Amino acid sequence: MTMARLTEYEDMNPRAKAVVETIARGRNVDPGRINNVWKALARHPAVMERFADQMRVVMAPGKLDALTKELIYLAVSVANQCEYCIASHGAMARNKGMTEEMHEEFLAVVLAAQQGNKIAVAYRVPVDDAFEEK
Amino acid sequence: MTMARLTEYEDMNPRAKAVVETIARGRNVDPGRINNVWKALARHPAVMERFADQMRVVMAPGKLDALTKELIYLAVSVANQCEYCIASHGAMARNKGMTEEMHEEFLAVVLAAQQGNKIAVAYRVPVDDAFEEK
Amino acid sequence: MTMARLTEYEDMNPRAKAVVETIARGRNVDPGRINNVWKALARHPAVMERFADQMRVVMAPGKLDALTKELIYLAVSVANQCEYCIASHGAMARNKGMTEEMHEEFLAVVLAAQQGNKIAVAYRVPVDDAFEEK
Amino acid sequence: MTMARLTEYEDMNPRAKAVVETIARGRNVDPGRINNVWKALARHPAVMERFADQMRVVMAPGKLDALTKELIYLAVSVANQCEYCIASHGAMARNKGMTEEMHEEFLAVVLAAQQGNKIAVAYRVPVDDAFEEK
Amino acid sequence: MTMARLTEYEDMNPRAKAVVETIARGRNVDPGRINNVWKALARHPAVMERFADQMRVVMAPGKLDALTKELIYLAVSVANQCEYCIASHGAMARNKGMTEEMHEEFLAVVLAAQQGNKIAVAYRVPVDDAFEEK
Amino acid sequence: MTMARLTEYEDMNPRAKAVVETIARGRNVDPGRINNVWKALARHPAVMERFADQMRVVMAPGKLDALTKELIYLAVSVANQCEYCIASHGAMARNKGMTEEMHEEFLAVVLAAQQGNKIAVAYRVPVDDAFEEK
Repeated sequence: MTMARLTEYEDMNPRAKAVVETIARGRNVDPGRINNVWKALARHPAVMERFADQMRVVMAPGKLDALTKELIYLAVSVANQCEYCIASHGAMARNKGMTEEMHEEFLAVVLAAQQGNKIAVAYRVPVDDAFEEK
Repeated sequence: MTMARLTEYEDMNPRAKAVVETIARGRNVDPGRINNVWKALARHPAVMERFADQMRVVMAPGKLDALTKELIYLAVSVANQCEYCIASHGAMARNKGMTEEMHEEFLAVVLAAQQGNKIAVAYRVPVDDAFEEK
Repeated sequence: MTMARLTEYEDMNPRAKAVVETIARGRNVDPGRINNVWKALARHPAVMERFADQMRVVMAPGKLDALTKELIYLAVSVANQCEYCIASHGAMARNKGMTEEMHEEFLAVVLAAQQGNKIAVAYRVPVDDAFEEK
Repeated sequence: MTMARLTEYEDMNPRAKAVVETIARGRNVDPGRINNVWKALARHPAVMERFADQMRVVMAPGKLDALTKELIYLAVSVANQCEYCIASHGAMARNKGMTEEMHEEFLAVVLAAQQGNKIAVAYRVPVDDAFEEK
Repeated sequence: MTMARLTEYEDMNPRAKAVVETIARGRNVDPGRINNVWKALARHPAVMERFADQMRVVMAPGKLDALTKELIYLAVSVANQCEYCIASHGAMARNKGMTEEMHEEFLAVVLAAQQGNKIAVAYRVPVDDAFEEK
Repeated sequence: MTMARLTEYEDMNPRAKAVVETIARGRNVDPGRINNVWKALARHPAVMERFADQMRVVMAPGKLDALTKELIYLAVSVANQCEYCIASHGAMARNKGMTEEMHEEFLAVVLAAQQGNKIAVAYRVPVDDAFEEK
């Protein structure tokens, strides 16, 4: 039903092509098989370059490992109700080791947080002094 | 400014007292020093019991460790903009080992996800076949 | 902490005064004791008039009674996390007959809906044919 | 377009089957005709059992009748923009007596609340003392 | 997949027909070619009349020109993740002069705002005195 | 009530100081009078540098002028209900020429969009072919 204006790799402008090539090289795939989000972003190279750069830096394993980062990304995507991101980062989380049991625990925490968030707001609960950073 | 109707432990009804005692025992603290969210929930024991039970089961370490669960909870809370939950689960994440460097990486992923979510929606990007579970 | 620019009744422009007088008459209170939301809106009379008119028509009892309408308004306000609206329409719901037991049941439904919403999205559940209107 | 991994009743694990049978019995329908949300949840029996249990308890008529509870659930679902929940709980509300006129009044209140919520936030309106519970 | 109950112009009730005729005249199009949102609203004439009236008044050029108003409407729609509104008001913005370069700058600002919003909330940043209106 | 951990300019690490100096130079103010959001971000220099860089590039006048960009940013902030951002970008919009009349028209469009978004979702309106980009 969705009719995003997607640009295939061979039809992209040089700046978009360069972004795709860097991503494809990093994932060891063919640039022609890049995901749809990049085909959609190709019409706006400045936005595309900035987002690609940010994703590359931010999602790289550091003090948090790659799977934990995917779960954080996925948690935000479920809270924000972004279907594309739930599908894409769900797939990436599975690629990085999320088992079915971990998926279930992940969702159970997300659902508890949804309720906790609304409880705090509905009752207008003031922040405890004990939670403040000293 | 916030004026939630908070009930102190000694003034709670028996069902609310029982919930608080279980939580306090689990954390090895005095029931009189329970967090505000429970003092707010005490007026509604059925909601309180259900939420306390769900939190106890869901947040216990399993296939995901306790810190990862806190980070997932915190990610949902930032996405939903719940100040109480950001303060309380931020404190719990620090208690469970979140360092300053991990906190920074956590926030960097949350911010990237915020943008990724809106990009997918603004461009109406269709889900790639490759992301579907077989 | 909040420092909205509030205009007291006696300092309002004539259009804002007229709106306040209609509301005050309907509630049988003094115009000088109007709620803060109207003191904030007074600087923008066109927005104020339209919202006051809409509220008057929409919240009047019809096929749904006044309390049910308040509960619907309150449900949206909790979902959207609007503290002012939770406080004000919570008070109005109590004025219109919401008991403590009803308040608890109300919140229990809101929390279930929060979870149901996220479950449907997280699992990308397709709408059943049986739900469609014929 | 949506490709949720749905599990039909006959292929479910025993815990999921038990949940479906309880729901089907309560609604007097065949377990094979259960709604999609349960077919999606079947892969995660712990989440499924907890949500089914919560829904059963929470949505049962109490101090609030069954239709009022559906309208509260539907209001949250519209505010959160969950298409599945709007379709499913819209159908349930009609089953429980929501007429076309009630539907229109319901939506009129939801739209007024959406505006009221944003007005309170945009003008940063402080909560009136009169709204606080004593 | 979506199966809204749409009413074609020739099947609408008189109040809905009148709304459509006013819109069609204003846009110089045939009433039979009105957009889907009006075909959906036709079942609820009171909601339809109020929204049509509000849109006509609010979107007319004033101190802000027509394109700026479309960009504001579109920004809210992206933040709220409303696909229909992104598609419809994206088309209207292009009709009113939004070029591809302006579209890219628009999206860049929206993405920056998304991050700025979450930064302010995640760090619980207090409002500077300098921002308050005197 | 909010107790963000703010770092004053003189106590910042060198990377944070450099960010603040660039911003202060651009606005021709003393680095010691930088806004709170930067004092909060100073503990996380990588996030701070990326956001400061993005804001500088994105908010600069281009095909859209500086005030239009502020209104887009403000629209997202109202939709997302970020009090800090509403206060700060409201002040910046006034600095860049937003008059009281423009502010009223801005809010009127935001409120109409809020309703339009929920109407499209509540009625599950399918996107018109005419809105698709060719």
